[in-house]
Amino acid sequence: MPGSVEVSLSQRVTRVTLRNAGKLNAIDIAMWHELRRVFTDVQAMPADQAPAAVVICGADGHFAAGGDIAEFAEFRFEPARLQHFHEDIVAPALRSMLECDVPLYAQIDGTCMGGGLEIAACCDVRICGEGSRFGAPIAKLGFPMAHSEVALLRRVFGETTLREMLLEARLYNAAAAWRCGLVHDVVADDAVATQVWARCERIADTLSPQAARLNKRTLRQLAAGDLTAAEREAHFAYADSAEHREGVTAFIDKRAPRFRSPPP
Amino acid sequence: MPGSVEVSLSQRVTRVTLRNAGKLNAIDIAMWHELRRVFTDVQAMPADQAPAAVVICGADGHFAAGGDIAEFAEFRFEPARLQHFHEDIVAPALRSMLECDVPLYAQIDGTCMGGGLEIAACCDVRICGEGSRFGAPIAKLGFPMAHSEVALLRRVFGETTLREMLLEARLYNAAAAWRCGLVHDVVADDAVATQVWARCERIADTLSPQAARLNKRTLRQLAAGDLTAAEREAHFAYADSAEHREGVTAFIDKRAPRFRSPPP
Amino acid sequence: MPGSVEVSLSQRVTRVTLRNAGKLNAIDIAMWHELRRVFTDVQAMPADQAPAAVVICGADGHFAAGGDIAEFAEFRFEPARLQHFHEDIVAPALRSMLECDVPLYAQIDGTCMGGGLEIAACCDVRICGEGSRFGAPIAKLGFPMAHSEVALLRRVFGETTLREMLLEARLYNAAAAWRCGLVHDVVADDAVATQVWARCERIADTLSPQAARLNKRTLRQLAAGDLTAAEREAHFAYADSAEHREGVTAFIDKRAPRFRSPPP
Repeated sequence: MPGSVEVSLSQRVTRVTLRNAGKLNAIDIAMWHELRRVFTDVQAMPADQAPAAVVICGADGHFAAGGDIAEFAEFRFEPARLQHFHEDIVAPALRSMLECDVPLYAQIDGTCMGGGLEIAACCDVRICGEGSRFGAPIAKLGFPMAHSEVALLRRVFGETTLREMLLEARLYNAAAAWRCGLVHDVVADDAVATQVWARCERIADTLSPQAARLNKRTLRQLAAGDLTAAEREAHFAYADSAEHREGVTAFIDKRAPRFRSPPP
Repeated sequence: MPGSVEVSLSQRVTRVTLRNAGKLNAIDIAMWHELRRVFTDVQAMPADQAPAAVVICGADGHFAAGGDIAEFAEFRFEPARLQHFHEDIVAPALRSMLECDVPLYAQIDGTCMGGGLEIAACCDVRICGEGSRFGAPIAKLGFPMAHSEVALLRRVFGETTLREMLLEARLYNAAAAWRCGLVHDVVADDAVATQVWARCERIADTLSPQAARLNKRTLRQLAAGDLTAAEREAHFAYADSAEHREGVTAFIDKRAPRFRSPPP
Repeated sequence: MPGSVEVSLSQRVTRVTLRNAGKLNAIDIAMWHELRRVFTDVQAMPADQAPAAVVICGADGHFAAGGDIAEFAEFRFEPARLQHFHEDIVAPALRSMLECDVPLYAQIDGTCMGGGLEIAACCDVRICGEGSRFGAPIAKLGFPMAHSEVALLRRVFGETTLREMLLEARLYNAAAAWRCGLVHDVVADDAVATQVWARCERIADTLSPQAARLNKRTLRQLAAGDLTAAEREAHFAYADSAEHREGVTAFIDKRAPRFRSPPP
């Protein structure tokens, strides 16, 4: 039975659940396609309908293992098909996450490896439980990481950690992951969902969605190089926006700003 | 009453004090202009008159909050004036710090937020007290960070921390700031000034000003891209300098080098 | 008596020992040349003869101090000769390490400074003893770091640490080095060699050499900029390789993969 990517939509916080029963939620090809669709859809939503944050989690006590090895024999041993898999299936799914300007949260229980770690790396904030484990031990499977995936992990986690992780096929427990900067916080295993949800609710309750959207866009533009003059000018179009006026005015009036319509 | 940037000059260590009474030393427009002037002046000083280090601190128990919100209504709600503020007032002030080749120290007490955090990020070494707090919670005010300021914080602090800081408007106490690499050391609140001063005095007493100047220039050149052949050749002009000969000779003679004239 | 670079070859793990008696293994010009030769040779070995890993260590309880100061008066005070030393002797030696696609381990005892720290920075994994010390205190000698060496340390260790290290000529003990990310692990002084050897043996016993080689090549390509279409396509040529098939097949068959011929 193939895996699935389940989406639980709400106006405030969307939850995306990776599920591949009996396989630690290994990401199969259908799931990569589905991930791409989900995050492209979120990014395409009008600002007043988009969620305040998206939480990515896994079913049944694990975040996600790597690819689904049951599918490997079908495409991995032929160069053109292998390149197609990494460049036309995996990379666009990860890119759709990186190009989604809503704050993304990784709620990490249990196993977070390979493709699962790459999905987590596309999130803005990563919170894990004490029992979680991290790595990308593909050197045991005889293959290297594809370049766009190395580029992602190198940018987010740094070369020092990545070299040890790849060259030793090393696994990291939660404490080691925290020390290496793989995650923002470690909490008790039964508190991960609560902790992540609280952070998202606070965003929904008190912060400007426009500010998040523009900050994420700026970070993406900077990762691609210097901004053009047109991009710089476009950035400041927010000057006259309702959220900007509301935020500054509320501060001066010593009241809480109201950036979103209250939940229905 | 507007804020001020006070400069206490000495031949050895210059102190720059941010002051905006009753506003946690929020940086107003006059102060941004003044910062630019101060650091442009330091950089323009002949090498034998420049201070060994510059300490930036805040008055009355705080480093600095962000911009001065009392001024915001004047210029923030019109795109061209907002862009002018960030690109022609804030950015050049920060750039004058980044282009100053004397070692810069941030002596951080209390609040270090927004524009204050950006000023600290331009320093080479940041020492804070146990009671200090860090962040850039502008998403509460409904606005994003300007791109040149995001670029600065991204380069100095890394994306992992910056995404959490901006997207959650998150504040960090001293211990969290230390763990994230925002500061080099945390000391008791009443020891920050002493600790920073001791580091600066040691530079003045024992290290080559030319080495500092060239190291900072090299780091700035590398941040801008690869060095040209002319820049590479120019670097090695120090070969025949008095400081280079003095340092190597003193080491071989097993005596302390003398790089500076003794204080008068 | 000049220093030496001793190579102890085996089919599984090669050991390279830096030795300059009475000088904390300071790297003299002959040793820089020798380092370049050693790592160029390792990189040129056919894949089935190359070692699984290379360990770099120092003789007599120290990793390595910086350059050999006894040689400095010969070439340091003339710009063209100084540039020749850094660009044509030191830089190519370090580059030969960075371009060697076998995993490199720094086994760090005692002093790891200046040129020694640069050699360690070219390694993929750095393990040190509790009594080790790190730094590049050349500002005491009146000179700055050459740009290609600054570029290396900046990339591997980050600007925050590097600025403090260079501008204060600061030394770091093992705990501080670990906190700053200079090393991957700190162990008891008498356990460093064992710990490093165990990591290398595990690579030799269980991991694909081809995966290591391709991962290191990808990281080097990314450090140089985006990959070309030809480089991307070339990467996936591993699809049909014996190691790839062996790794995936062994995993599916639930047996240990065999990537290397057993040691004779």
